[in-house]
Amino acid sequence: MPISFNLPPAARPGQPADTIDTPSLVLDLDTFARNVERMQAAADHAGVKLRPHAKAHKCPDIALAQVARGAVGICCQKVSEAVPFVRAGIADIHISNEIAGPAKASLLAQLARHARISVCVDDASQIDALAAAAKAAGSRLDVFVEVDVGQNRCGVADAPAVLKLVERIAAHAPLALRGLQAYHGGIQHLRGWAARREAAARTAERTGAVIARLEAAGVRCDVVTGGGSGSVEFDLGSGVYTEIQPGSYVFMDADYGSNDYAGTLRFEHSLFIATMVMSVAAGDRVVLDAGLKSMAVDSGLPWIWADGAASATLDYVAANDEHGIVKPRQAGQAAALPALGSRVMLVPGHCDPTLNLYDEIVGVRGGVVEAVWPVAARGLSR
Amino acid sequence: MPISFNLPPAARPGQPADTIDTPSLVLDLDTFARNVERMQAAADHAGVKLRPHAKAHKCPDIALAQVARGAVGICCQKVSEAVPFVRAGIADIHISNEIAGPAKASLLAQLARHARISVCVDDASQIDALAAAAKAAGSRLDVFVEVDVGQNRCGVADAPAVLKLVERIAAHAPLALRGLQAYHGGIQHLRGWAARREAAARTAERTGAVIARLEAAGVRCDVVTGGGSGSVEFDLGSGVYTEIQPGSYVFMDADYGSNDYAGTLRFEHSLFIATMVMSVAAGDRVVLDAGLKSMAVDSGLPWIWADGAASATLDYVAANDEHGIVKPRQAGQAAALPALGSRVMLVPGHCDPTLNLYDEIVGVRGGVVEAVWPVAARGLSR
Repeated sequence: MPISFNLPPAARPGQPADTIDTPSLVLDLDTFARNVERMQAAADHAGVKLRPHAKAHKCPDIALAQVARGAVGICCQKVSEAVPFVRAGIADIHISNEIAGPAKASLLAQLARHARISVCVDDASQIDALAAAAKAAGSRLDVFVEVDVGQNRCGVADAPAVLKLVERIAAHAPLALRGLQAYHGGIQHLRGWAARREAAARTAERTGAVIARLEAAGVRCDVVTGGGSGSVEFDLGSGVYTEIQPGSYVFMDADYGSNDYAGTLRFEHSLFIATMVMSVAAGDRVVLDAGLKSMAVDSGLPWIWADGAASATLDYVAANDEHGIVKPRQAGQAAALPALGSRVMLVPGHCDPTLNLYDEIVGVRGGVVEAVWPVAARGLSR
Repeated sequence: MPISFNLPPAARPGQPADTIDTPSLVLDLDTFARNVERMQAAADHAGVKLRPHAKAHKCPDIALAQVARGAVGICCQKVSEAVPFVRAGIADIHISNEIAGPAKASLLAQLARHARISVCVDDASQIDALAAAAKAAGSRLDVFVEVDVGQNRCGVADAPAVLKLVERIAAHAPLALRGLQAYHGGIQHLRGWAARREAAARTAERTGAVIARLEAAGVRCDVVTGGGSGSVEFDLGSGVYTEIQPGSYVFMDADYGSNDYAGTLRFEHSLFIATMVMSVAAGDRVVLDAGLKSMAVDSGLPWIWADGAASATLDYVAANDEHGIVKPRQAGQAAALPALGSRVMLVPGHCDPTLNLYDEIVGVRGGVVEAVWPVAARGLSR
């Protein structure tokens, strides 16, 4: 006899926020809305288009909020990741990445029957595969040539290499060159504001030099896309980018929170992990019910969040698979440790892979659960 | 008009293994079966019960295979994690962890109406909460007192503290003391075989001393549970443990693979991540389509697997969210780099949180997909 047993939800709209089951991903909806507004206003002011990166949130409800406020569409990093966004009605999606293998080209070309789809290339064979798939699906694909502007990951090295790929794209009727992608992820997390400004300026210079060479060769780039949450305040004024693709700004994780912000474009921490103290037996430490399976620690351990700021007395010092160890920052502060069963809010170290661990975002306003949003693209890494 | 569009599956039974979409989690079913057999045979030979840890695989199909071969049940680390296993008919589940909060006690007590359920405690208030929940649900719960034998995480420190909790358990009719949990995770990954043997011996001595004090006080522990994939070869002969709870042995990740095994109990790498080369533009490196969202890197980067062994020429040197960078180990070996679109198999650094990223395990035998198993407890961290 099959056993019928359903797991109760972590939260339901209307319930008090301090009764959400733990660990859960909690979004402060007022703070989130301010972050969405602030980035859009900055892009509008600069006359640059905003195409937020959905790899940070993987959540159609968030993408729809971004587009409603003025975003021209979204970026995705994987073809499969785009599927729930196409389904939700996002009409313009850029895959800010190269793809390999016939399954992915075929899927992309099929998605292009329902939305405007673009994708990056850095090799002639990718262009041929995209053209074949688009032809088979009866669709059209926009193509960006990716230039390596210092990230040392994907992308071609220089303008001559771009021009070869541009010629190849032009040879295929179902493809259209849309422009250049010039993204440098490494500079997003330079801690010092001046260091980030300098690095962003060098990236923009490098990108601008490629554009100039292309224009001299008669190739016009309608769109130049790039920039992330750590560099956009500089990218917006660079005169090079026509479109920015930041993602993390809606949440602001602890890694981005560790950057210095001397400029005017700042974002607030809106995303938290609600956890609970599950063991206090030791006395000199407490154990939380959230570890490696509830947060990504590749960019550092989470902050403990209390009274609207990172705790000055308690540290999350170690993550096991399902446990988090919390200790007082200074010896003799054990009295500050939270009690068994009490709730502890964390700011995750790195939002993107943390979102990828959760099926839902619990949206909270005024101490009450207002919405539970599916992280519909969670796990969609193909 | 809602857009109806379904993502094709990564693999279907019957298709060639080298056509599985990437990144995917691939299990070599023959190797997996040998691992299951080897651990069960060792436990049987020692007269110790095997209760494999399902936190490693989160997959009911694997739990059913373990029980079919002789396991007495499984461990889970979280209450919600147990739900799909109860649903699949696993009749005896030990939550090898403390729980906090009324929602979890209530869920546990409800699960105990469908299966034999046990859980750990290290505080009197946990015992009272379990008793109240079991009473309300009309069920019974078995209770283990956890002793801290060096892990410095959860668990009480000594026999007097155990005795206090044993008295408290006895005061509640719906609860029954089942025994002691004495697990030391930290020693599992000591690299040297002799160092692990010594550490396991000290853990067993410490556990044995607590048992002796309890017996002197008239308290008998029917079950003493502990041990992991790195220590079981010593735990089985310790005379202390009546039950072992290893998990990773079915897969053997790169972290466990880095241990030295001088003894007779060895396991083989059965779990791989199938990836594809998506960019070769740089020449001195290639980029794989699998990064932090497709593998846990907390215990080290993955190995590149080729011809039945870890590659001696290529290294996975960096993981970004969706990208993996592969470089030749020595300068001048760039000719060994795989071509664009070619497939690269990885052995993940740490299996447990890697499994927690995937919805499916693709089981392969003889180069053909044989089964696609749901990772039904993926994300169930409450």
